[in-house]
Amino acid sequence: MLGTTYEGQNCSAARALEFVGERWSLLILRDALFRGMTRFSEFERSLGVAPNVLAKRLDLFVKSGLLEQTRAVSDDSLHYRPTPKGLAFKPVIMALTAWGDRWAAPEGPPVHFEHQGCGGRLTLRSHCSQCRDMPTIPEILAVPTKHRRRSS
Amino acid sequence: MLGTTYEGQNCSAARALEFVGERWSLLILRDALFRGMTRFSEFERSLGVAPNVLAKRLDLFVKSGLLEQTRAVSDDSLHYRPTPKGLAFKPVIMALTAWGDRWAAPEGPPVHFEHQGCGGRLTLRSHCSQCRDMPTIPEILAVPTKHRRRSS
Repeated sequence: MLGTTYEGQNCSAARALEFVGERWSLLILRDALFRGMTRFSEFERSLGVAPNVLAKRLDLFVKSGLLEQTRAVSDDSLHYRPTPKGLAFKPVIMALTAWGDRWAAPEGPPVHFEHQGCGGRLTLRSHCSQCRDMPTIPEILAVPTKHRRRSS
Repeated sequence: MLGTTYEGQNCSAARALEFVGERWSLLILRDALFRGMTRFSEFERSLGVAPNVLAKRLDLFVKSGLLEQTRAVSDDSLHYRPTPKGLAFKPVIMALTAWGDRWAAPEGPPVHFEHQGCGGRLTLRSHCSQCRDMPTIPEILAVPTKHRRRSS
């Protein structure tokens, strides 16, 4: 999480960034969402992160409802599993990955995204609810939404 | 930008986050990409950010090739305009916005994304290159890419 919130900035993107903008948070969430990691020791080994830092980040994710703690019946081991709120970060990580692959990965993409059903490559596209087209980047506009109750 | 890079983490998402993970960077880029802002004074007024902080962030964006400086012929005014590398961050901001709208915007989405062509609402979807389907979140897998030259 970032140190402070974006006061006066009514921006959903900025709010989302508060959860993954911190350097380790994104990597922990990536491992939880895409690599099936659930144990403290798995995250620790994967990331080489200091245990106190990892504990703090996992605790924040649990408190903010992105991960939930479960205990295995068999050996009482503690696991961190993504909630729907956490899983919903998958497209964010895909979008960041797509940018990094294109503009900051000289050795080529380290991972790609696959469709579980058919094994095809997945990309993230904008999709128009009206004409069903997939517009290119210049065709994407941001427009203020009119609410009945005015937001700041 | 974050203080240090993610050493040993061959992760495109983490690399992309280095550009927008900082609290003001995302908001500046949002204003540049989606609100058509180009002048220092426009960013300053929109964000209420300290001029020295804004100057540093804009400078970083220019150095990293996300924005480029131009001068108007008419009045010699300085403008910051997104490059293709910068414009490619649109889907990242859309994905962050979608998450924030769903999970952290109690007063409703402040903006929505529109298709310039037809005015329809735009959402970000994963798209399968093989079956042309748009898989749901649980069907999205991350798979290590095999390269000829091994990456760390």
